[in-house]
Amino acid sequence: MQRLPGVGPKTAQRLALHILKRPETEVEALAQALIEAKKKIGLCKVCFHLSSEPVCEICRNNTRDNTTLCVVADSRDVIALEKTREFKGKYHVLGGVISPIDGVGPEQLTIQSLVRRVSKDQPQEVILAISPSVEGETTTLYIGQLLRPFTKVTRIAFGLPVGGDLEYADEVTLARALEGRRELD
Amino acid sequence: MQRLPGVGPKTAQRLALHILKRPETEVEALAQALIEAKKKIGLCKVCFHLSSEPVCEICRNNTRDNTTLCVVADSRDVIALEKTREFKGKYHVLGGVISPIDGVGPEQLTIQSLVRRVSKDQPQEVILAISPSVEGETTTLYIGQLLRPFTKVTRIAFGLPVGGDLEYADEVTLARALEGRRELD
Repeated sequence: MQRLPGVGPKTAQRLALHILKRPETEVEALAQALIEAKKKIGLCKVCFHLSSEPVCEICRNNTRDNTTLCVVADSRDVIALEKTREFKGKYHVLGGVISPIDGVGPEQLTIQSLVRRVSKDQPQEVILAISPSVEGETTTLYIGQLLRPFTKVTRIAFGLPVGGDLEYADEVTLARALEGRRELD
Repeated sequence: MQRLPGVGPKTAQRLALHILKRPETEVEALAQALIEAKKKIGLCKVCFHLSSEPVCEICRNNTRDNTTLCVVADSRDVIALEKTREFKGKYHVLGGVISPIDGVGPEQLTIQSLVRRVSKDQPQEVILAISPSVEGETTTLYIGQLLRPFTKVTRIAFGLPVGGDLEYADEVTLARALEGRRELD
């Protein structure tokens, strides 16, 4: 249990003791559900988002905009962006970010498929929505260079979070917010 | 003591007891320092930033760029922006944001002086660096409308804080980050 993310020794013990207290049928149902989920859920062969079908729901949805493609690091990011209901285009999940320290190079990610997909489908815009960490920046710049020959490449804005206070923003964020200023419309 | 910001009953008691324990001379020195600070520190008559002189150090500094003016709500924001070392122009401190609930209208702020200053000095750009709260947005739009006849008006960027993770960003921030996306350069 301790190997699960965010579970330390104490939580692991609590979970284990809780499971031991439940009736056997319930524990079997949980075990079965885990096995089935692992069996059924794979990656969409178009965008690499988690999916129980060969092609995921978002890729199959014909009412979505085919001309904008949003590139994210992880399936979690797709879920976060879907919650905003702002983006109506399609996604491409990289499966991580370039991180030489962790042995993750461009080959370990779905970058090759992305380039193939963009050169074939010719979207009007590719939005890079990758977190602004050092690895995220590297990945953004790397993919930007690869895709620029095919299409317009944009990246999401960095600056003050909404509801945030200037005073509490760190200096780098504040500098980015100043640098990224735009004309009032 | 309880009236100080961030000081609750317990901290107030701790502070009071600490002061009672100190030698009399020390307490007198603190009291004197408070009175003097209150007497000496006023507002700069040009930008309304805190200053011990009639005109503050930033306004007097001739090496600073006179063509960009950054409008902030509070003196704290000037200090925060100065720490980034990114901005080399001058400031204008509003003294708050428009908030009808708290009885703060445009007349209670230094907006009139700002309009006069902009129409006289004709800066090339006015940057509105006001926190993205409801009141902050109102203030930004209000000032934007007043100043647009005189000069270019921009606002700082809103989006993902640097080092932040897409997954942990709230939906409104994520939507703003998407909306404010810019072409990769």
